[in-house]
Amino acid sequence: MYNDKVMDHFMNPHNVGEIQGADGSGTYGSPVCGDMMKIDIKVENDVIKDAKFKTFGCGSAIASSSVATDMIIGLTIDEALAVTNKQIIDELGGLPAIKIHCSVLADHAIKSAIYDYAQKN
Amino acid sequence: MYNDKVMDHFMNPHNVGEIQGADGSGTYGSPVCGDMMKIDIKVENDVIKDAKFKTFGCGSAIASSSVATDMIIGLTIDEALAVTNKQIIDELGGLPAIKIHCSVLADHAIKSAIYDYAQKN
Ligand code: FES
Repeated sequence: MYNDKVMDHFMNPHNVGEIQGADGSGTYGSPVCGDMMKIDIKVENDVIKDAKFKTFGCGSAIASSSVATDMIIGLTIDEALAVTNKQIIDELGGLPAIKIHCSVLADHAIKSAIYDYAQKN
Repeated sequence: MYNDKVMDHFMNPHNVGEIQGADGSGTYGSPVCGDMMKIDIKVENDVIKDAKFKTFGCGSAIASSSVATDMIIGLTIDEALAVTNKQIIDELGGLPAIKIHCSVLADHAIKSAIYDYAQKN
C-alpha cells in the first residue's frame, strides 16, 4: 500500500519535536479523521532555519510532515507559502487516495505556523 | 481532545512488535481511514499467553491496540472473542466519536488473529 519512501519517513521521521522559543507555531485538526498536527518554525532574516512537528496522526501524516518540514527548511517565508500539498505528495512518491487528507494536515499546519510568524512580525 | 489514559498508551504503548512463530496472526485495514493493524497471538492450552501489534495507524489506533492486547493476554480464546469494542473504549476511558473507527481496527485485528489460530487448530 505504501512505497519505500513513505515507509522510510514513517519509520525514521525527520524533524520530530518542538522548538523552544519558536518564531511561529501552527496547529491543525483534520475534519476527516480528527487527527492533529502541530508545527513550530524558527525564522531568521525571513528564512526558515528550523521546523519541527508533533502529531497524534497516522503513518501517512508522519511521513508527510517529515518530508514537508525537510522541504521548507532553508526556504524564505514566501517560498514556503508557495509549497503545495501536491508537491509534498510528489516528494513522497505518492500516497493512496484515502490518505491524501493526512498530508493536508502537514500542509495546513505549516501555513498556520507561517501566518502565526507573520502576525507577530 | 484525549484523556490522560489515551495519551499514556499512545506515548508508551504496550505490546508493540511481532511474535516469531505466532499461533495466530490477523490483519485488518480500515475502510474509513485506510490504516492497517496487524496482531500476533501466542496461545497455550487455549489461553492467550502473549499478543503483539504493529500499525501504520494514528495515536487512537495505537492506544486502542495497547489496551486491547493488555486485555486479552491471560484470557481463553472464548473469553477473548467475547471482548467488545465498547469494552476497549471503556478501558481507555473514552474516545472522541470521530476516532471510534480507530479502535475498531484493534478489535477486528484481534478477532482475525483468533480465527487464524482456530483455523490452524
Ligand atoms: S488518518 Fe488521520 S492523519 Fe492519517
